[in-house]
Amino acid sequence: MKGFPQSMLSLITEFAKMPGIGHKTAERLAFFILKSHPEYAKNMAEAILKVKSQVRFCSVCNNLSDTEVCAICANTRRNQDVICVVETPNDVISIEKTGSYTGVYHVLLGNLSPLDGIGPKDLKLEGLLNRVRDGHVKEVIIATDSNTEGEITALYLVKLLKDKAIKLTRIASGIPVGAHLEYADQATLSRALERRIPA
Amino acid sequence: MKGFPQSMLSLITEFAKMPGIGHKTAERLAFFILKSHPEYAKNMAEAILKVKSQVRFCSVCNNLSDTEVCAICANTRRNQDVICVVETPNDVISIEKTGSYTGVYHVLLGNLSPLDGIGPKDLKLEGLLNRVRDGHVKEVIIATDSNTEGEITALYLVKLLKDKAIKLTRIASGIPVGAHLEYADQATLSRALERRIPA
Repeated sequence: MKGFPQSMLSLITEFAKMPGIGHKTAERLAFFILKSHPEYAKNMAEAILKVKSQVRFCSVCNNLSDTEVCAICANTRRNQDVICVVETPNDVISIEKTGSYTGVYHVLLGNLSPLDGIGPKDLKLEGLLNRVRDGHVKEVIIATDSNTEGEITALYLVKLLKDKAIKLTRIASGIPVGAHLEYADQATLSRALERRIPA
Repeated sequence: MKGFPQSMLSLITEFAKMPGIGHKTAERLAFFILKSHPEYAKNMAEAILKVKSQVRFCSVCNNLSDTEVCAICANTRRNQDVICVVETPNDVISIEKTGSYTGVYHVLLGNLSPLDGIGPKDLKLEGLLNRVRDGHVKEVIIATDSNTEGEITALYLVKLLKDKAIKLTRIASGIPVGAHLEYADQATLSRALERRIPA
């Protein structure tokens, strides 16, 4: 690493710690910062510090938020009777992008993974139970991932909530829209058959 | 982009301005920052600002440096009689990595590119001429890129320096070490034949 000034070396080292950023990319990014407008570097540095200092988890749903209660939970035009349970804040983003959901969320911040030693206590379940106990909630939609951990988490949620006086649903799984049947994996295809609906 | 807190959006926007970083990657990096240790975010922000405030061009060779004169120019154990002329500070790094060059450098900070309107005045040629005029220099090695712009720049340098009382050389071009002949492009192969040396 001869030839680089010390401050470039430090920046390259920091960049290279980020996921998917190898040493070559880190060098390129550091050069980009070096050549960039001073304003850009300042904004970038501030944005990094701000994310760490301002972003927290919503005290209601655990979604990411700049404020005590996130914009979705605070939005009175959203249907507060329906809670969609997801694993991560990213899942919230994905569902929001569809534009077809008007209820609120509950982010578990993880999934059950017995093999990794992650049990119910590691998920944000207490808050969900409290919200359901409040009595306002009419439906809980389970939207955990469709992989093993997600399925285990979904089963646990069903066990946890089935006695409550609420409608408990699960998002549909099957053939993705626009996909060719011939390329669908067997598990997806057999589930799509199994969960067929009246045409 | 609903669902993201404002400070995350700002950081994603800043990341997405970097080369080779698309929106998805920018999201991933912003999440990484969000989840990272506060110390890491602080170091990263500081490293970015430091690069902008500290790194400048060496007043002798235009290489990147934290100091007025870069570590290579200031190193008295290096052969100050031989100057290797390169296009960018990255080229200095590449040559330094070989560990087989003990002279000093001159970074042009660009190459001649008539099509892009980049002429001799846009390159750091004055400093090179002054160094050669000083009389200490015995050899100038031209190590511009092997593409069109690099070749034009090399030809210009030859024209500029051929009357000076110095040895003027050009780094060899030919088949890369370890490469298969059958995969070499025609231009490289014909040049390798043309510039053959006694075995």
